[in-house]
Amino acid sequence: MAEDWANRDDEAEASARLTAVREALHDSNAEALEALLEPLHPADIADLLEQIGQGEREQLLTLWRGGVDGDLLSEIDESIREEVIDFLPDDVVAEAVRELETDDVVDILEDLDEPNQEKILGALERADRVAVERAMGYPEYSAGRLMQREVVVAPEHWTVGEAIDFLRGSDTLPDQFYHVILLDPRMKPTGYVTLGRILSAARSTPLREIIEDSYRTVRATDPEADVAYIFQQYHLISCPVVDENGRLVGVITIDDAMNVLDEEHEEDMLRLAGVGDESSIQDGVFDTIKSRIPWLFINLLTANISALVIGQFESTIGQIVILAALMPIIASMGGIAGTQSLTIAVRALATRDLTVSNAMRVVRREAAVGAINGLSFAILMGLAGWLILGLPMLGVVLALAMVINLCVAALAGILVPLALDRMGFDPALASGTFVMTVTDVVGFFAFLGLATVMLL
Amino acid sequence: MAEDWANRDDEAEASARLTAVREALHDSNAEALEALLEPLHPADIADLLEQIGQGEREQLLTLWRGGVDGDLLSEIDESIREEVIDFLPDDVVAEAVRELETDDVVDILEDLDEPNQEKILGALERADRVAVERAMGYPEYSAGRLMQREVVVAPEHWTVGEAIDFLRGSDTLPDQFYHVILLDPRMKPTGYVTLGRILSAARSTPLREIIEDSYRTVRATDPEADVAYIFQQYHLISCPVVDENGRLVGVITIDDAMNVLDEEHEEDMLRLAGVGDESSIQDGVFDTIKSRIPWLFINLLTANISALVIGQFESTIGQIVILAALMPIIASMGGIAGTQSLTIAVRALATRDLTVSNAMRVVRREAAVGAINGLSFAILMGLAGWLILGLPMLGVVLALAMVINLCVAALAGILVPLALDRMGFDPALASGTFVMTVTDVVGFFAFLGLATVMLL
Repeated sequence: MAEDWANRDDEAEASARLTAVREALHDSNAEALEALLEPLHPADIADLLEQIGQGEREQLLTLWRGGVDGDLLSEIDESIREEVIDFLPDDVVAEAVRELETDDVVDILEDLDEPNQEKILGALERADRVAVERAMGYPEYSAGRLMQREVVVAPEHWTVGEAIDFLRGSDTLPDQFYHVILLDPRMKPTGYVTLGRILSAARSTPLREIIEDSYRTVRATDPEADVAYIFQQYHLISCPVVDENGRLVGVITIDDAMNVLDEEHEEDMLRLAGVGDESSIQDGVFDTIKSRIPWLFINLLTANISALVIGQFESTIGQIVILAALMPIIASMGGIAGTQSLTIAVRALATRDLTVSNAMRVVRREAAVGAINGLSFAILMGLAGWLILGLPMLGVVLALAMVINLCVAALAGILVPLALDRMGFDPALASGTFVMTVTDVVGFFAFLGLATVMLL
Repeated sequence: MAEDWANRDDEAEASARLTAVREALHDSNAEALEALLEPLHPADIADLLEQIGQGEREQLLTLWRGGVDGDLLSEIDESIREEVIDFLPDDVVAEAVRELETDDVVDILEDLDEPNQEKILGALERADRVAVERAMGYPEYSAGRLMQREVVVAPEHWTVGEAIDFLRGSDTLPDQFYHVILLDPRMKPTGYVTLGRILSAARSTPLREIIEDSYRTVRATDPEADVAYIFQQYHLISCPVVDENGRLVGVITIDDAMNVLDEEHEEDMLRLAGVGDESSIQDGVFDTIKSRIPWLFINLLTANISALVIGQFESTIGQIVILAALMPIIASMGGIAGTQSLTIAVRALATRDLTVSNAMRVVRREAAVGAINGLSFAILMGLAGWLILGLPMLGVVLALAMVINLCVAALAGILVPLALDRMGFDPALASGTFVMTVTDVVGFFAFLGLATVMLL
């Protein structure tokens, strides 16, 4: 059994391996390094490169001369790829990229600066360079950038037997393919057949009788997020890409779609937290600061709005100082409640479960939830104000402020992302700050305002 | 070109369709309803069912008698599946589940209550029931629950020609398969070959010479999160599943892995926001309240800790009331900074980019970022305190408190999730509350404490 598991990337094993690699680097022992890295999948070597510091990384790349290939460059995280390509000798990079399929070259190229892009384009053979440049001509984050140009096609009138003979006679099939795409005489795809069906059907069966129900195409200019959505919604394995005239220009496979899905999720999560989209655990101090300062700064401005609101009630606080201790409770409960509805809304917008059609129902539900949660905590706070602090009217103020703020929080949590989405903005990007500002301002204002009216 | 796009699920189109469906329901027009729903992919019909209210849903299921099949049941979101199965007549459910492959039945069964599970198991044929019950015997969220039992295998000594003859002669191949798995005489898988390679290699080529490099197996008891990780890390399309003796028991395909990945992401996002894992936009008021109350309650407790801290400084605030207006600024800046590092850390733990090996480097970076961001905003706040409020010493207090809180926030944001992860908890689950409590308490204490010492 052990041999089946030798490749398995287990965390303890990865950590022991990293220690061994560091030792080999320390001893400048090229043989030991080779023995450690050679059996690994490029994805695991890339992870290893990401986990060591820049100095060690350069040492490793120098000591492990023969090891860098196209697959490894593809697997390395964007956050350190530029650095690695800058460091590697030009001929190593050139040889590495020449091995890759064009979609992988495009993927690498996208995140590089101009001189490095030139370096890589210059290394490619003419036909590949033209293909890569054409792909780079499609908008960033579009299907055209994701697709591979290597496709397996057959005329739509062929039979299973003709397709098998053609496939078995062909010596230029791509490494990985799962479907044969049927083309009409004008090069427009009309369906596709899985290899499994081709292998199990009778030779005389017309291909068009065994095409897949789930067949769909995307346009080269479609956003990659839509492509990922289609793969997930319809359980696709591959999807033909067509140009504006409906002619086949390439194919996208599910592993690319899975990557996009993962990136979209990451982006939503980082944006919700107010961190730059492309932040990564590998970033240096400077990049990290750059990605975090903007939202800290915006928060500073919005926090000052809250401070201004509180400032209006200075004389109330001066007379009943305990209000200062209690007011953050109201504000922070609103913040939590707002974040809760907000997260559900952002997620539902991303998965297209929240649409114009059901928005009103969801808004009504949020209002009800806000009111009921508000009342529950209002009773708790009211009792606490009365029994613990011995001030029944303070209890009433706390309770009313809590109801008001939780209702506002629930509604802001759903209405702010919906509005941003309608206006064409990414709801994950700015919702958090908006909603927190609303709940802080409303929380402080309601609590201190009620206190001024009812307690003074 | 239009015909290629007829199936495309565009949001405007979906919304128009929903309106038409509602009209058909209102008019009890079964024919119109049939005409609208029949051309749709089951995934789109399921989305439609999720977007209408329970009353309309029951009306639709009644009016559209012939339409409910196994695929539709599979596609319906867990949040309404129980309700739909409760509502449908037993014989409709029975017929629907009989069409499904066993892994899809397991997927449906998992989320149902006892009586509905019985109802479905009772409807299956004996062989399928045994297979489903065996799968349900594996732990929840394990590879055994995800896998399908239908596999395509060949003895490892076969040639391409033998494999092709076998596949073409077989009439029990699964609907979708991408690899032929090679078995040794003890039924242990030793590699797999893609159908594309089988179709393009010479008949005499031994299968074991064209096996895929990326081949890996998982154990039936492995957690599904590990399975999703392996699919993504190694770009797999399918992966054989083995029992504790290394014998083949099934296969997992990438569409299942993609679903798991999506669910894991959703879980992280919901947990970070303090909402129950299984919350959904379709939940009713009661479920929504149930999923949100726990974290609101915990936040109430931690907010009271902050209130107690502030309470200690009542006399300070009584003497300099403006402190009450300024203290939330320090706390909220800490909250934002803490959330930022926390999100990066939780994400990096999920993608296994943050490990023991690089934790110290990341902690040092966070400390540096906290200090530098803290200083930048300290200068801003210090100047504001001095120039706007005309109180130079208040500026110094604001600046010092800001530096302290942003440093603490950055460190708490990384150390709390790391510690939770080490202790075997999901870092996404509780980190947020911990970190916010720390930044609130430290923020209020540092600011008011410094003010007491330096300003009174």
